[in-house]
Amino acid sequence: MKIAVLGTGTVGRTFAERLISLNHEVMIGTRNVADKLASTETDFYGNPPFGEWIKQNEKVKLGTFAEAAAFGEMVLNTTQGAGSINALNLAEAKNLNGKVLMDMANPLDFSKGMPPSLLPELSNTNSLAEEIQKTFPELKVVKALNTMWCGLMVNPNMLAGGDHTAFISGNDAEAKAKVKALMQEFGWKAENILDLGDITTARGTEAMLPVWLRIYGATQNGAFNFKVVS
Amino acid sequence: MKIAVLGTGTVGRTFAERLISLNHEVMIGTRNVADKLASTETDFYGNPPFGEWIKQNEKVKLGTFAEAAAFGEMVLNTTQGAGSINALNLAEAKNLNGKVLMDMANPLDFSKGMPPSLLPELSNTNSLAEEIQKTFPELKVVKALNTMWCGLMVNPNMLAGGDHTAFISGNDAEAKAKVKALMQEFGWKAENILDLGDITTARGTEAMLPVWLRIYGATQNGAFNFKVVS
Repeated sequence: MKIAVLGTGTVGRTFAERLISLNHEVMIGTRNVADKLASTETDFYGNPPFGEWIKQNEKVKLGTFAEAAAFGEMVLNTTQGAGSINALNLAEAKNLNGKVLMDMANPLDFSKGMPPSLLPELSNTNSLAEEIQKTFPELKVVKALNTMWCGLMVNPNMLAGGDHTAFISGNDAEAKAKVKALMQEFGWKAENILDLGDITTARGTEAMLPVWLRIYGATQNGAFNFKVVS
Repeated sequence: MKIAVLGTGTVGRTFAERLISLNHEVMIGTRNVADKLASTETDFYGNPPFGEWIKQNEKVKLGTFAEAAAFGEMVLNTTQGAGSINALNLAEAKNLNGKVLMDMANPLDFSKGMPPSLLPELSNTNSLAEEIQKTFPELKVVKALNTMWCGLMVNPNMLAGGDHTAFISGNDAEAKAKVKALMQEFGWKAENILDLGDITTARGTEAMLPVWLRIYGATQNGAFNFKVVS
């Protein structure tokens, strides 16, 4: 499948590499291709500059947000939550309409100290996923995999034989089935994917970030996940 | 131990019964004893009126919030989150100071439709547990067990051999040790009690309510819990 990955950070790179390994065609989308290639900055986690990474991953195509969205049959949102609506506006509705958007972003607010809180306007009685769905009514938004470290998102079997829980939320049953199928390619077992219902249920999964951040703070280990035991 | 249970709802009754079965002395505290005994209303869940329940649980003492707080060596907050500060004010600082408060309440906001959201002033960059700690600086507040159905709080072994996670948050290490000891009497294994750190980490666990409510909505089963898998 042709897949657009919007965002060039750790999450976007992790998805791009995994999707290539699964023989998908991937175009990664960014705001300004020339600037991104010229950047020499390592990121917060010490990852290499994007220009180096893309050389090591030559099967990954690179384009603007709009070019990537036009290329993809499915679009993945791995941008920072605070900038997601802007990135999708740059991707342009005409390139998004009718497609499935798998949304992994979280509306984190870094302006009030660490660990981050949630952006007030995109949490509690709203969510980033709902805001995207309201802004792009013809896009089929499915919230998925935002509740864990990106390494686990694309490779659940690295932990406890894959026996932990992923949540999905969305208004369109067919879109959720497509996202679930891709997750199963990553190694998720169908019985560990819990469909919470419509896109408003993303209010629940996006609100897991505050406890995720505290568990990470207490244990200094991000390679954990939640399992719903019943 | 002499334990005060503030609140006469399902959570308070569940703790009172369990504590009596463990040979603790329990006084349950309420706003107005005469009104509470005279009430003939069944609650939202169809539980009997409080007057009937207390007759069936004759070892449980009944008093005002202040009488219960004065009685208890440890105090349990099982009131509704929106009313917790008020209930503790009625319990009076002089009856609370120096004691451990185990806080199971959640700052739910029922004013904006179902499922409830979180009270904006007591969430995200604040929490109910922190607000209680700020209001009563001499009280040793420990947030605990607020992330699950009350039946599981006091009897974790009814699910998966008790192999799921409880979180605690608080500023005072000795107070957390006392809460942990009581939880172990309930059946919690030490290795399944995760100390997240100071009382601000309750922002994380109180923010689990939105996803708890969506999982309950999707599965129609409240007898579940989260296990941190690492």
